[in-house]
Amino acid sequence: MKFYDCTTAPSPRRVRIFMAEKGIEIDTVQIDLANGEQFSEEFKAINPLCEVPLLVLEDGTSISQISAICRYLEEIYPDNPLLGRTPVERAVVESSNQQLQMNGFAAGAEAFRNATPGFKNRAMPGPHNYSQIPELAERGQQRLDNLFSDLEAHLANSQYIVGDYYSIADISALCVVDFAKWVKKRIPEDYSNLQRWYDQVSSRPSAKA
Amino acid sequence: MKFYDCTTAPSPRRVRIFMAEKGIEIDTVQIDLANGEQFSEEFKAINPLCEVPLLVLEDGTSISQISAICRYLEEIYPDNPLLGRTPVERAVVESSNQQLQMNGFAAGAEAFRNATPGFKNRAMPGPHNYSQIPELAERGQQRLDNLFSDLEAHLANSQYIVGDYYSIADISALCVVDFAKWVKKRIPEDYSNLQRWYDQVSSRPSAKA
Repeated sequence: MKFYDCTTAPSPRRVRIFMAEKGIEIDTVQIDLANGEQFSEEFKAINPLCEVPLLVLEDGTSISQISAICRYLEEIYPDNPLLGRTPVERAVVESSNQQLQMNGFAAGAEAFRNATPGFKNRAMPGPHNYSQIPELAERGQQRLDNLFSDLEAHLANSQYIVGDYYSIADISALCVVDFAKWVKKRIPEDYSNLQRWYDQVSSRPSAKA
Repeated sequence: MKFYDCTTAPSPRRVRIFMAEKGIEIDTVQIDLANGEQFSEEFKAINPLCEVPLLVLEDGTSISQISAICRYLEEIYPDNPLLGRTPVERAVVESSNQQLQMNGFAAGAEAFRNATPGFKNRAMPGPHNYSQIPELAERGQQRLDNLFSDLEAHLANSQYIVGDYYSIADISALCVVDFAKWVKKRIPEDYSNLQRWYDQVSSRPSAKA
C-alpha cells in the first residue's frame, strides 16, 4: 500500500492521526500541494480528483475520501476500533463524523479558499475550477462560529464527541479546530467545555501526526 | 424503530430506495417540511438538527445522516448488501457515495436553496439560518454540469457507479439526477452513457420509493 500525503494540509492529517492511533505505518509519498504537484500528469494518472489523502492498494485500486480510507484501514487493522464497537455506536460515530465533514471542513474550506489570494480560481478542491465568492468566505466564518457553539454545548455533557469513546469523530473535530486557525478562528475564551476537550485530544501523542 | 420521512424531499428518498432494495419495512412518520414541521418543538426534541431522514431506535437513540442510517440498516439486515461485499469494494462504494454527497447533493442544494424565494433565510438546512447568496446558486448549476459530465465519462466504462455492482452509490446518483430537475437541470441529450444508466436504475421497482 502507498499513502499519498501532504504534511502541511489539514485533510490528510485526519488519516495520519487515525493511523497513529492504530499504530499503522504505511509507505508514504508527499505531494507538494503548495507547488501544484496534485495537478501534475503523473499524479492525475493515480488520482484524477487531484487531491490528497489517497490510499493506493497493492492491486492498484485507488481509494480517495478520508472516510473511505479510514474504513478500509479499520477493516484490515481491526484492533483499537475508531469507527465504533457496536452497530449503534458505528452509526452514531458515522453520523457525527459526517456532520463534522459538512459543518466543519466544508465550512473552513469556504472561509479559507474564498478569501485567500492564492486560491483565486480554486474556491473548491478537485479537478474543476470555481471562482471565489467573497460572501461565501463570510458565511464560512459564521458556520465555524455556529459549529464551535454547538460543540461547546455538546461537550458540556459528553467527554468525547461520542460519549466516553474516543473515535474518528474526535480526530475530525480536532483537525477542524486546528484548520479554523488558518482563518483566524479560535476557541472563544469562555468555551470551557470545548477547550477541555481540545486540551485532552490534542495532548494525545497521535495529535502530532 | 421509527423512520422519519418526507415523501416530497430528495434526501429521505435515498433511504427509502435503500430500504426497498433490501425489502425492509419500518414504521414511518411523515414530517411536513413544506409547513415547517421540522422546526416544531416536538420534532426538535427528537432531532435538534431539524432534518429528515432520521431513524429512531427502540432504545431512543436518534440516528441522523443518510450514510449513517443506511450503515445501521445494512448491519442489522445484511442480506443483499448495498455498501459493498468486500473491504475494497466497501471502501470504493463509500468513496463514490461521499463524492456524490458533496458534488451532487450539496451542489443541488446550493443551486436550489440560494435561488428559491421560499428559502430566503434558509440557504442551508439545519438549525442555523443563513442568507441566500445568488452567486452560489450559479455555482451550484456549474457544479451539477461538471458532475453530469464526470458521470457521463465514468459510465462509458462502467455499468453502475461501482463496476457491475448496484450499490448505495447508484441510489445516491439517481436521487441527485432527479433532484437536479428541481433546478431545471436535465441529462444532456448527447450523454448516452448517463442516460443508459439512468434508464436502468430508474426502472428498478425501488426507484418508485
